[in-house]
Amino acid sequence: MSKTPVTAGIDIGGTNTAFGFVDRNGKIIFQSSIPTYSDKDAEQLFERLFDEMNKSFKQFENNYELVGIGIGAPNANYYQGTVESPPNLNWETVNVLQLVKKYSPLPAAITNDANAAAIGEMIFGAAKGMKNFIVITLGTGLGSGIVVDGKLVYGADGFAGEIGHKIVDYKGRDCGCGRKGCLETYASATGIRRTVFKLIAKTNLESELRGISFEKLTAKDISDAANRGDKLALEAFDYTAKILGLKLADSVAYLSPEAIILFGGLALAGDLIVSPTKKYMEEYMLNIFKNKVKILPSALPGADAAVLGSSALIWNEIKA
Amino acid sequence: MSKTPVTAGIDIGGTNTAFGFVDRNGKIIFQSSIPTYSDKDAEQLFERLFDEMNKSFKQFENNYELVGIGIGAPNANYYQGTVESPPNLNWETVNVLQLVKKYSPLPAAITNDANAAAIGEMIFGAAKGMKNFIVITLGTGLGSGIVVDGKLVYGADGFAGEIGHKIVDYKGRDCGCGRKGCLETYASATGIRRTVFKLIAKTNLESELRGISFEKLTAKDISDAANRGDKLALEAFDYTAKILGLKLADSVAYLSPEAIILFGGLALAGDLIVSPTKKYMEEYMLNIFKNKVKILPSALPGADAAVLGSSALIWNEIKA
Repeated sequence: MSKTPVTAGIDIGGTNTAFGFVDRNGKIIFQSSIPTYSDKDAEQLFERLFDEMNKSFKQFENNYELVGIGIGAPNANYYQGTVESPPNLNWETVNVLQLVKKYSPLPAAITNDANAAAIGEMIFGAAKGMKNFIVITLGTGLGSGIVVDGKLVYGADGFAGEIGHKIVDYKGRDCGCGRKGCLETYASATGIRRTVFKLIAKTNLESELRGISFEKLTAKDISDAANRGDKLALEAFDYTAKILGLKLADSVAYLSPEAIILFGGLALAGDLIVSPTKKYMEEYMLNIFKNKVKILPSALPGADAAVLGSSALIWNEIKA
Repeated sequence: MSKTPVTAGIDIGGTNTAFGFVDRNGKIIFQSSIPTYSDKDAEQLFERLFDEMNKSFKQFENNYELVGIGIGAPNANYYQGTVESPPNLNWETVNVLQLVKKYSPLPAAITNDANAAAIGEMIFGAAKGMKNFIVITLGTGLGSGIVVDGKLVYGADGFAGEIGHKIVDYKGRDCGCGRKGCLETYASATGIRRTVFKLIAKTNLESELRGISFEKLTAKDISDAANRGDKLALEAFDYTAKILGLKLADSVAYLSPEAIILFGGLALAGDLIVSPTKKYMEEYMLNIFKNKVKILPSALPGADAAVLGSSALIWNEIKA
């Protein structure tokens, strides 16, 4: 009997590194994680990771064959195979694909989390069968993966798809990138927390959020409050959706996608964010694009999305 | 002796329709034009056009072979082969490629002027050998053609690349599209004329432009005045370049192009617009993209650019 092929999907985070074995239909046959130890170098991580993966795969090797390795990591460069000064890891530029070669001869690829999410949606999720779409990840920041004609857009240097750093207001909010007013300072889990604090400062709206410090406030607190009818929380969602909808209308003018898929923490707020974003996007849409572009929530199960995305990255390369 | 292959490049404008025969190296062996008669239907134009083209080609038919037909037209849809309610022509939606089939069995393709310009730059001009670049046409409006991985981006519906309609300020200047504050209301020949009038209203700067009505004022008047040191004209260029540079920095964050090529009327102002646009683009650029992206003037000779672009569109398809 022939073995079922699976790929390894690896997601390198600042705290933990998750991995899983995923078949061509997106079924995860096993997944686990190890601590990243982000203060140490990349070599130690990959040594432990492949040790753990090899041990874990033992129980499957009679029925499954590992055929490729996909990796999602912050600041990853698909072309170079590198990770370049990742924000949450104490690494300089590391050639990850070279490191992987020390442990495995299988085909391997690396990209950033948002690009992996986009390929995950294309192979296993909400963008199945689509050729032109954009995935927006609304987490601590705003990441994006752009697919044109069935292929992820990497651009000349491998770093395309930084929609989170389009400038909404060049005199606006301080951004972690050193500039001001980037989209992710408004439209992200952190962005909506900032908006709540702006509204607390500006308005006299009563709100249960007035009792929470900025450090403690989560996007979930805000969506919970909004679901209970908290006016300030509702206004924060409306403000976030307006800026995001306006900028997604711009994205449509660039790329004419079939759909825009919202992914990640803030997208879990569901209709609090998806419906008003769609409404504002249509309000600001160029006529020729009106009512053509879907806004969809991610169809990747939240906890598994990163592993599925990384696995999809390499499935997408060896499928031909 | 074998004949040299040439393609026909056709550019349909509101007043005239130009055509030319162009070899694979971008040499135009013949070009001419006929009136469009934009108040009449499309059939009469194509009947006269092919009649004229066939007559013109007679003198070349011993040495040249016509191998394809490329067409640039406003509101053209590459996928459908149609022109949809073009602004300067009294046509409804017309299937141009079907019309062409009545007169010629050769391979044919149609796209809008800015996309044709982008392919023209790729095959014959400033983007030779580039795989990722953006062409911005600064004429009456702002058009754009986006090339990713060597292919023009048409998007899901064939209308991608409307960078001129990204919204700079949703409360800003009235745009012809019915919305407010689109980029082309600032960064275009019309946009800089509006900026001059804004500055006349706002400042007390002395200027030779105060004696010219809006209807009479041209972009060339403004660049001539700026070249003579007119402070108001110089400030108008600076304002235009600032908005354009900022929005091109956004475009880089989306697409990570190797170069952005400026084309068309306002781009002829040369260093008055190219240098400050580059300066502002770098000022507002995300760190990872700084000093990587060239801003280049078009390398297609102005008077021939439209015919070369349309010709390149079909050369690009039959080259394989």
